[in-house]
Amino acid sequence: MLIVMKPGATASEIDAVINIIETVGFRAHSMPGATRTAIGITGNEGPIDGRRFENLAGVAEVIRVTKPYKLITLDLRPDRTIVRLDDATIGDSKLSIIAGPCAIESRDQAFAIATIVQQSGARFFRGCVWKPRTSPYTFQGMGDKGWEILSAVRDEFDLKIVTEAVEESHIDVIENLGDVIQIGARNMQNFPLLKRAGRSRLPVLLKRGMAATLEEWLLAAEYIMAEGNYNVILCERGVRTFAQHTRNTLDLASVPAIRRISHLPVMVDPSHGTGTAYMVTPLARAGVAAGADGLMIEVHNRPELALSDSAQALTPSQYLELVDEVQAIHQVMAPTGNDGLNNRRNMTPGKPSLLEQSRHSNRRESLS
Amino acid sequence: MLIVMKPGATASEIDAVINIIETVGFRAHSMPGATRTAIGITGNEGPIDGRRFENLAGVAEVIRVTKPYKLITLDLRPDRTIVRLDDATIGDSKLSIIAGPCAIESRDQAFAIATIVQQSGARFFRGCVWKPRTSPYTFQGMGDKGWEILSAVRDEFDLKIVTEAVEESHIDVIENLGDVIQIGARNMQNFPLLKRAGRSRLPVLLKRGMAATLEEWLLAAEYIMAEGNYNVILCERGVRTFAQHTRNTLDLASVPAIRRISHLPVMVDPSHGTGTAYMVTPLARAGVAAGADGLMIEVHNRPELALSDSAQALTPSQYLELVDEVQAIHQVMAPTGNDGLNNRRNMTPGKPSLLEQSRHSNRRESLS
Amino acid sequence: MLIVMKPGATASEIDAVINIIETVGFRAHSMPGATRTAIGITGNEGPIDGRRFENLAGVAEVIRVTKPYKLITLDLRPDRTIVRLDDATIGDSKLSIIAGPCAIESRDQAFAIATIVQQSGARFFRGCVWKPRTSPYTFQGMGDKGWEILSAVRDEFDLKIVTEAVEESHIDVIENLGDVIQIGARNMQNFPLLKRAGRSRLPVLLKRGMAATLEEWLLAAEYIMAEGNYNVILCERGVRTFAQHTRNTLDLASVPAIRRISHLPVMVDPSHGTGTAYMVTPLARAGVAAGADGLMIEVHNRPELALSDSAQALTPSQYLELVDEVQAIHQVMAPTGNDGLNNRRNMTPGKPSLLEQSRHSNRRESLS
Amino acid sequence: MLIVMKPGATASEIDAVINIIETVGFRAHSMPGATRTAIGITGNEGPIDGRRFENLAGVAEVIRVTKPYKLITLDLRPDRTIVRLDDATIGDSKLSIIAGPCAIESRDQAFAIATIVQQSGARFFRGCVWKPRTSPYTFQGMGDKGWEILSAVRDEFDLKIVTEAVEESHIDVIENLGDVIQIGARNMQNFPLLKRAGRSRLPVLLKRGMAATLEEWLLAAEYIMAEGNYNVILCERGVRTFAQHTRNTLDLASVPAIRRISHLPVMVDPSHGTGTAYMVTPLARAGVAAGADGLMIEVHNRPELALSDSAQALTPSQYLELVDEVQAIHQVMAPTGNDGLNNRRNMTPGKPSLLEQSRHSNRRESLS
Repeated sequence: MLIVMKPGATASEIDAVINIIETVGFRAHSMPGATRTAIGITGNEGPIDGRRFENLAGVAEVIRVTKPYKLITLDLRPDRTIVRLDDATIGDSKLSIIAGPCAIESRDQAFAIATIVQQSGARFFRGCVWKPRTSPYTFQGMGDKGWEILSAVRDEFDLKIVTEAVEESHIDVIENLGDVIQIGARNMQNFPLLKRAGRSRLPVLLKRGMAATLEEWLLAAEYIMAEGNYNVILCERGVRTFAQHTRNTLDLASVPAIRRISHLPVMVDPSHGTGTAYMVTPLARAGVAAGADGLMIEVHNRPELALSDSAQALTPSQYLELVDEVQAIHQVMAPTGNDGLNNRRNMTPGKPSLLEQSRHSNRRESLS
Repeated sequence: MLIVMKPGATASEIDAVINIIETVGFRAHSMPGATRTAIGITGNEGPIDGRRFENLAGVAEVIRVTKPYKLITLDLRPDRTIVRLDDATIGDSKLSIIAGPCAIESRDQAFAIATIVQQSGARFFRGCVWKPRTSPYTFQGMGDKGWEILSAVRDEFDLKIVTEAVEESHIDVIENLGDVIQIGARNMQNFPLLKRAGRSRLPVLLKRGMAATLEEWLLAAEYIMAEGNYNVILCERGVRTFAQHTRNTLDLASVPAIRRISHLPVMVDPSHGTGTAYMVTPLARAGVAAGADGLMIEVHNRPELALSDSAQALTPSQYLELVDEVQAIHQVMAPTGNDGLNNRRNMTPGKPSLLEQSRHSNRRESLS
Repeated sequence: MLIVMKPGATASEIDAVINIIETVGFRAHSMPGATRTAIGITGNEGPIDGRRFENLAGVAEVIRVTKPYKLITLDLRPDRTIVRLDDATIGDSKLSIIAGPCAIESRDQAFAIATIVQQSGARFFRGCVWKPRTSPYTFQGMGDKGWEILSAVRDEFDLKIVTEAVEESHIDVIENLGDVIQIGARNMQNFPLLKRAGRSRLPVLLKRGMAATLEEWLLAAEYIMAEGNYNVILCERGVRTFAQHTRNTLDLASVPAIRRISHLPVMVDPSHGTGTAYMVTPLARAGVAAGADGLMIEVHNRPELALSDSAQALTPSQYLELVDEVQAIHQVMAPTGNDGLNNRRNMTPGKPSLLEQSRHSNRRESLS
Repeated sequence: MLIVMKPGATASEIDAVINIIETVGFRAHSMPGATRTAIGITGNEGPIDGRRFENLAGVAEVIRVTKPYKLITLDLRPDRTIVRLDDATIGDSKLSIIAGPCAIESRDQAFAIATIVQQSGARFFRGCVWKPRTSPYTFQGMGDKGWEILSAVRDEFDLKIVTEAVEESHIDVIENLGDVIQIGARNMQNFPLLKRAGRSRLPVLLKRGMAATLEEWLLAAEYIMAEGNYNVILCERGVRTFAQHTRNTLDLASVPAIRRISHLPVMVDPSHGTGTAYMVTPLARAGVAAGADGLMIEVHNRPELALSDSAQALTPSQYLELVDEVQAIHQVMAPTGNDGLNNRRNMTPGKPSLLEQSRHSNRRESLS
């Protein structure tokens, strides 16, 4: 915490601020400057709500220094979190793909799509049975009937089931029948739901809220972890901006930003992140190139008949194309790690990676 | 719904789109233009999810025409909704004020503040007992113990109690002990909570979400009304933008925008809308001048010691000053209506307008 | 400037940072905290570009403390700037109104509108002759021919002429024939244009850019003042956000924010700030209630035929109504000043204002 | 243009609107719907400013259908524009890289950096001599003296010089001594500057404005093309949003969005798009993966001493690493085109995909 005094602040105003700081048990460090005095505060374990100093006489500004999160940080846990469900993983060297329809609509639909998802090599199947919809007059999901279908998909295709929980009781059901609890963008700050997810043994995929700062998003993860569940996967799905050519603006800079602060895996959802089928594949490639641990993709056997989000669902062939392309990019990035931070990892000792191989080919001439 | 074809769309692509429209039971109106053909769709009662047409061959764009809301509209109910709790009202010709601390912290605190609120003539007392907080490590509200205090305030000061419900079970408690259910910005699209509020007999104060478009906000109100509860009060509390001189950007244009579409009352919360005490009064005045039905104001007997939102709480004297100022503005606006729309005035030169007349009248007695 | 080290920063990393600070001639103040060390920098006259420290080993974050502006601040000049053109003023106790069409279209149009503007008591006439238009295919203004009309309006109606300069040469013309140089939102960071305006003897009305932070806007004013022209008027005209019910989101919190930092007058433009006629009057009232020194309003004798911005122009009668309403609000606010910061001004010595009359209740003595 | 009437609009209100449409020479198509009537307008060559209809009696909403741009569209020119300067190209199958310092500071600095740029295979050298700076008190560029250095770089390293023009006279200089005119984000709607660039024979690199919609950006390109200069390169550099972990939010969805509408090449600037060195490489990779034609990268021989934008400049080794990584991604994407759109692939099981084939082959021939 740093308190910046106004240029004309009097000595007694400065003393008064220092007094209050020391009264509440901290140390005050006065720094008289050329034009104004700043007062640093130390001795606090966690963040202080310093906005209380804002209205004291002579105070120009209060600047927070300590970050409010703990459990999500690399400071606390320097090794990256890897979420494991049997052989299905998120956060290790493989690119993880969660794919499926926006909503479960019928057994035929789910099975047709699951066939494609399995064929693509993805290990996670998404499909909502409870849909949070903007309008009360649109399709709200199949509810419990959808679970019979999801369970059959899980058994028959050996896919892990990822479903959104919209209320606490849903988590009970997912714990019985599913594999990963999804918390949607609209519920990123539904704190009772976060706490309930924090008391679950299942991994939680936490989507970024539409207007969430990075800090708010990480604090939402902190809510889950503070209850004891450390298997949290962050998922960037775009934020709301003035731009109108997409449904949301996919903020891929969040990927390296999270990498720098946190050990948690981070995925990208280009389907919601763009809202339009023709943009999904380019932005999926971009997400992987930015260093994401995986992707969440909406695919539908007949997008034009989908009961929700029809405009952003890929056809099966578009989806398979996408998987091919992103796997190729993931592979070429592997030797330098997927974070762009120059941390060389020798993944197959002794064997040159594709990228390394490419450094011996005559790439220079084609550069320009 | 309007489907705009690409300039080079073929006759058979156009026919295919028309075919699909008619197959699903609507009427297609083809409008060949100088450079491209547009196809209008009629025959639909509610909005069609037309995004399904977006990926058909030859289609350039799909434009929605029908609005997705019904119950909130002036089309459905031309008279403005007035929320009444005994003699306390929101939405009629008086300016309604909801005031109190961010959170209930102690009996002394609550009573000291309630004294001031009552003195100001306000009829509603706000105070949270369950706080949705961004960080899991900050004060989360007194919980049930806070209710003993709120009940005492209600009895002793004859004030109506407004409290935020963070989960469904909270609404049960408010129904027993409080008067108005507040749905906070973070829960504006917590649909199970909205539905539960819709099954209540108490009025619901619905805050705008941080990134909510007007349409999403009105649809959240529609969720409540669709369950049978028509006593919904909208509350503008600022949206998230790039601006950094305020915690949120108060969007006062939402007030006339709502007036034009909806019969529901609309209030303004300049405390959360600015996040800083020195801005609260100017923006409160602005909210009233824009035509709001009332204000929600945070006041604290000792803001510098408040356990939450300390920077935006007014002192008692600042609060009383604010009430004076906004009542004076409300009164001067009264004769021309408080929306700037339906006010008819005789502009005949020489004859004093109602507004001018009001400059000579005593405006004091209607303050509370 | 405050440099926050990472929790695990080593003593030698900390020393290295301190070394660099002292090498470049500043003082370093080390503040070891419970979890991390922060290093304050003093001795600098102006702001340091501290982002250079960001990539040093062990550095977590660099926080700027000193503000980059000087001439615009109340620190430098505690008295408010009043812009005077003969008897026409901006920034004193009167509410200043600039009104007129978006663009000059014909002598008949300009004279019809000037008649109304004069009748309303406004002292400034706006009207563009050079229009910055988003599309190259729309009306670009009358150019020099428009000046004959503007000059005639100036002579005949005794109104001060406010016109937007789109390039440097325009300022030469305005200096000959006009009264106030307007810099539009799109040119707020057109630095050569700002510098040219800074070398003029005419007042400059500087609109806020669509995505300008408060600091950037104030620095644009600083550019003008740094060249010697201190007659700068700031004009809030809305910023770009996700909201779609208005053309821009009018950010009225900028009014008290500027008041707190700067001596410059600030006006509000609800015409561009909303983009829609029915919202102009409510937001004009709100702007005055927030404490603005004046308003800029678009009015047209036949809005439906206007060659630009037709949707936001008021009719003459709507405009006169607006002036009545905002003057009434301005009057009622007068005794406490128009900034909400409790600065009492006795505008009519000896005569109690309406608001002062209202203070016969017993709440006055507790006012801070 | 589509005019949507209110549900309660009368027949005579509808007739009045139709009358006005026909009076101004268009055709009106009335479409009575279940709840309201819509009126389509055809017969217009370009866009109509339909906002004039907004305030007519009975009108609920006016929806624009025709897009306002022409020259930038694929409709007009189905083949992609390739900008050629001798052997240096932008927009063809190669990945184009523009690299260099933010500003030219000295001959030593420029030559040290040019050496690296040349070594990387890039064909374009960037370096500003006139800097648009937010504050008047910071380094404003070397001005004309910088040109001696740039000319020497051009001769000695055989690099094409890209420099930002801040005013019209700068373009004269660039035409004499440079190769590509850069129009910066702050000047994207400086229309006189755009028109002057449109009268040049040099290619123009047009950066997206901080708050520019896609349409506004494309219309700025249209301004240049309307004057006869068709060599326009678009450059995405991030937009302003609420997010605070980056200087700007890089909107990579603009890349496929432009591809779908326009024949113009599009580059990505991850340096300004993130503002922080550690994010530049991941976002550069993402930009290429999204399908950009090239990148603009800031590199400095000693970033910690850079006179501007020091936090975002890469070191020489970081830059060379970046080039390696993005070329590898570009290569792996090549066979399916760099837009993720028009790529048709034989998905027959058992047969290697084109992508797989490409890993063993020369991939050039299938490039669109």
